[in-house]
Amino acid sequence: MKAKISDAVVNRLPVYRRYLEDLMHEDVERISSNELSKRIGFTASQIRQDLNNFGGFGQQGYGYNIKALYKEINTILGLDMEYKMVIVGVGNLGQAIANHTKYYKNGFPIIGMFDINPKVIGLRINDVVVQDADNLVDFLKENKVDIGIITTEKEAAQGIADRLVQGGVKGIWNFAPRDLVVPKNVPVGNVHVTDTLNSLVYRIAHIDQE
Amino acid sequence: MKAKISDAVVNRLPVYRRYLEDLMHEDVERISSNELSKRIGFTASQIRQDLNNFGGFGQQGYGYNIKALYKEINTILGLDMEYKMVIVGVGNLGQAIANHTKYYKNGFPIIGMFDINPKVIGLRINDVVVQDADNLVDFLKENKVDIGIITTEKEAAQGIADRLVQGGVKGIWNFAPRDLVVPKNVPVGNVHVTDTLNSLVYRIAHIDQE
Repeated sequence: MKAKISDAVVNRLPVYRRYLEDLMHEDVERISSNELSKRIGFTASQIRQDLNNFGGFGQQGYGYNIKALYKEINTILGLDMEYKMVIVGVGNLGQAIANHTKYYKNGFPIIGMFDINPKVIGLRINDVVVQDADNLVDFLKENKVDIGIITTEKEAAQGIADRLVQGGVKGIWNFAPRDLVVPKNVPVGNVHVTDTLNSLVYRIAHIDQE
Repeated sequence: MKAKISDAVVNRLPVYRRYLEDLMHEDVERISSNELSKRIGFTASQIRQDLNNFGGFGQQGYGYNIKALYKEINTILGLDMEYKMVIVGVGNLGQAIANHTKYYKNGFPIIGMFDINPKVIGLRINDVVVQDADNLVDFLKENKVDIGIITTEKEAAQGIADRLVQGGVKGIWNFAPRDLVVPKNVPVGNVHVTDTLNSLVYRIAHIDQE
């Protein structure tokens, strides 16, 4: 593995991955950076530059071998390994994630769920029983959980993040509308859902200026 | 309203809005760009520059009046108006959004839901009955819907986007893992949930290089 890759490239890798997956479903075997550019919307030179970070799979006049590139991107992303996850906050969104069976199939098993609401504790979703959040740290330590998913109200998010760190998770996937303070060695992936709605509304309100 | 504001600034406005909301809950009345910088993590000069786009609310030695700035950002974002929304694809995620009552309270009523699955059609969620997706275009035109939310499988997303455009929505909030092709005057806000998980996993796998 070479030097650290920029966050911008890291954020584009899943996009490449999605398009390559689509191409495989269409039974396309090879694609040039120009054709890929037309699909994804990034420039061909950006695509070549991004993919060169990982050793230059493209051959002049041949293009990229889609399956090989897909596999390599999976490896680079670390998607060839399994990541045990827990969900903290089993409301509407937490339940939606718990019910999204693709995560289980694709190396992201949800092995624990936690809440503070007595009405939710004891619920069984995909064979996992929701536990009292008081058990969180012990559970994390015992089960070597990789990723903690925060789907609580924003007021609770930082406290949960602290417990996830205490329990030794390697990363946090945060859906609460709050930016978390965590040690540098615990990456956070934020999904600020309502922020995207607010930006969309701005664009709708100012469309005549585009 | 001045010249077009960059996408980067537009994407930061909801972040300012969130922090200002928190400050109001803490009963803070004023804040300097330096203090705001410590909270948000943007530099103080970036904050001043961003907020100057809208007329410079800050006063030297006084700071920003939080309530006034919050109100102004809401107006700029277009959040002082109501946006009628429909959900297309009433699976786990669509139901989670439909059940998120904050949207109804904050000017984003969900007035229609659509699916193709006979098991889902007829379901009632928050007083809205799920309709057959065949009725989508007619419903959009009759009810002057502002925003279409796509929570279908990715294979269906582009077809739904076409119908939303045909029905005259002003913007699309897209949760399907597919980048949509739509006319320029219909902005799309993407929430590529699984992309954020994939980038997080990359960071976990390469944490020693950070």
